[in-house]
Amino acid sequence: MARVHNFCAGPAALPLPVLEKAQAELLDFNGNGMSLMEMSHRSKAFDEVINTAEANIRKLMGISDDYAVLFLQGGASHQFAMLPMNLMAGKAADYINTGAWAKKAISEAKLAGKVNVVWDGADDKYNRMPKADEYTLNSDAAYVHICSNETIGGIRFTDFPKTEAPLIADMSSEIMSRELDVNQFGMIYAGAQKNIGPSGLALVVIRKDLAERCPETAPKIMRYSTHIAENSLYNTPNTWGIYIVKLVTDWLLGLGGVSAMEKINEEKAKVLYDAIDGSDFWKPVAAKEYRSTMNVCWTTPNEELDAKFVKEATAANLSGLKGHRSVGGLRASIYNACPREAIDALVNFMKEFEAKNG
Amino acid sequence: MARVHNFCAGPAALPLPVLEKAQAELLDFNGNGMSLMEMSHRSKAFDEVINTAEANIRKLMGISDDYAVLFLQGGASHQFAMLPMNLMAGKAADYINTGAWAKKAISEAKLAGKVNVVWDGADDKYNRMPKADEYTLNSDAAYVHICSNETIGGIRFTDFPKTEAPLIADMSSEIMSRELDVNQFGMIYAGAQKNIGPSGLALVVIRKDLAERCPETAPKIMRYSTHIAENSLYNTPNTWGIYIVKLVTDWLLGLGGVSAMEKINEEKAKVLYDAIDGSDFWKPVAAKEYRSTMNVCWTTPNEELDAKFVKEATAANLSGLKGHRSVGGLRASIYNACPREAIDALVNFMKEFEAKNG
Repeated sequence: MARVHNFCAGPAALPLPVLEKAQAELLDFNGNGMSLMEMSHRSKAFDEVINTAEANIRKLMGISDDYAVLFLQGGASHQFAMLPMNLMAGKAADYINTGAWAKKAISEAKLAGKVNVVWDGADDKYNRMPKADEYTLNSDAAYVHICSNETIGGIRFTDFPKTEAPLIADMSSEIMSRELDVNQFGMIYAGAQKNIGPSGLALVVIRKDLAERCPETAPKIMRYSTHIAENSLYNTPNTWGIYIVKLVTDWLLGLGGVSAMEKINEEKAKVLYDAIDGSDFWKPVAAKEYRSTMNVCWTTPNEELDAKFVKEATAANLSGLKGHRSVGGLRASIYNACPREAIDALVNFMKEFEAKNG
Repeated sequence: MARVHNFCAGPAALPLPVLEKAQAELLDFNGNGMSLMEMSHRSKAFDEVINTAEANIRKLMGISDDYAVLFLQGGASHQFAMLPMNLMAGKAADYINTGAWAKKAISEAKLAGKVNVVWDGADDKYNRMPKADEYTLNSDAAYVHICSNETIGGIRFTDFPKTEAPLIADMSSEIMSRELDVNQFGMIYAGAQKNIGPSGLALVVIRKDLAERCPETAPKIMRYSTHIAENSLYNTPNTWGIYIVKLVTDWLLGLGGVSAMEKINEEKAKVLYDAIDGSDFWKPVAAKEYRSTMNVCWTTPNEELDAKFVKEATAANLSGLKGHRSVGGLRASIYNACPREAIDALVNFMKEFEAKNG
């Protein structure tokens, strides 16, 4: 069959040229006579892959030498545990609770030490981010943690909190989708499977001095310092995942980098939000000011029509539009690799659906 | 170029039919209109992949319902930390030190609790496994840990230790290469990248009752019980890795399963060891009784010839034959996916090399 329009929340669509290149060299990577998957992680050929992936990421995000760029396993969920184990160092940490993913990070951190939840969006059903005057950070916090874009709620921080303690952000569902100053952050991490690659990999960008905080009682494999010292090769990394990230970041650089991608993303999101706002038939889930450009959540007039929409959309090759079970309704994840044509096809389908059911 | 004969220690050769299938369906998995990499880990299509992979493994290894089969991230190195965190439960554990990989497991375990190294092969430069009367196990040990096949030293346990405490085995470099009774073990684990798939994945086979030992202070993502309860989908798993394991185990079942594979492996190893034993030019590294059928280590008369051998072999499309830097010499990793033809090509090359340099 033809490839569908893929709105999955993650694992998610990858750029077609990336898949085509991976397919073309699957039996013989770069003239080495073997697949990338069959190749030592300590070979020259793989060295070039991981070094290029890192250089691409540094270039795309403007990352200075004060920061390490790590490719770890276990996705963001593993970071929820690794972060407090490394950075709390006996102090409490501030967490802002903005929805499902922030909550998971909080739950793991509580097992590692004292957590202060300085703001909780429960009263508004997590449909918005807080304003700066709605929370008070603790002056002696080990760090301040945010989820910069909530995949399930479809909200994002427009501006990031100003903090004295290092600001740590889970950016899984928006990494490299918009320009930002990495120097605002102590650490940024992201599961790869939404915006930059396949699952089984986490990108961690960490200020090197923070990695020194980890107590020597922590498992060696759970310390950022271990992986910094070994350039992500302390243990065998997910070589295939790093290879795909290399191809995705090559592709992103070819498009003109994050600033060019951000413009495309804003256009894509505008077209879809305009369609939702353009009729009373559709109801957006997130408060306007905090709408995500990556995860667009909305509903039809009722749950039956939501289900009908998902079913008929799937039949029309528009895949992955069911909202998360905790929110319901509809969700289109329109990450970097989701092309403008997919948005246009979705909006056209929405018009037809409304005409028939409105 | 043509595909080379791949003797890499890991990541290692994969069966050609597996790579060809992965290549064929890379843009469209099973008529879903998207790559497996782009697909939700909670989709029906992926459910079938992970369930088939598990069923294949249960069938191939004869695993009863008393055991859980888990697909985790971080490879065996992550298990070195996860195992003691889950299973020590305040007690000491016995470890048998048989070389580089056993040592790494011991080093991580010491950070988690008390470790008794009940035997150490240092005096023999780790060229053999211990006999049963050479070590005394502690009656109150939480568990007994072995590395059943040392990739770097090229030795393996012919018979496994008889233990009262649960026997735990790192089988990364020999999993599914020979028949064994899983019921002898409390847990078996293996990084996938040597015998069953790509890197970024660990297979864990654990007796379910042992998973209950984990203290509630452990990070939730580090508990076996978490992953058992969620059927390896607590967090997004390495979906591509699991897919390749599914294809590899399909292939292995098609060959006739582990018993058929074991016969082929024994023949392959015999041909290579016979060539080594057949001339004084070559010196085997491992003691005969404990020779691995997966990792064959040997040397030429001197280091210069070792280096020359590796260089000329590489030019002759025989790749990955350099011994690990800690042992030196030569090593051929001849895992399940390494075909008999590769062994024959290597042995022929050895004969030519000896004729020129002997």
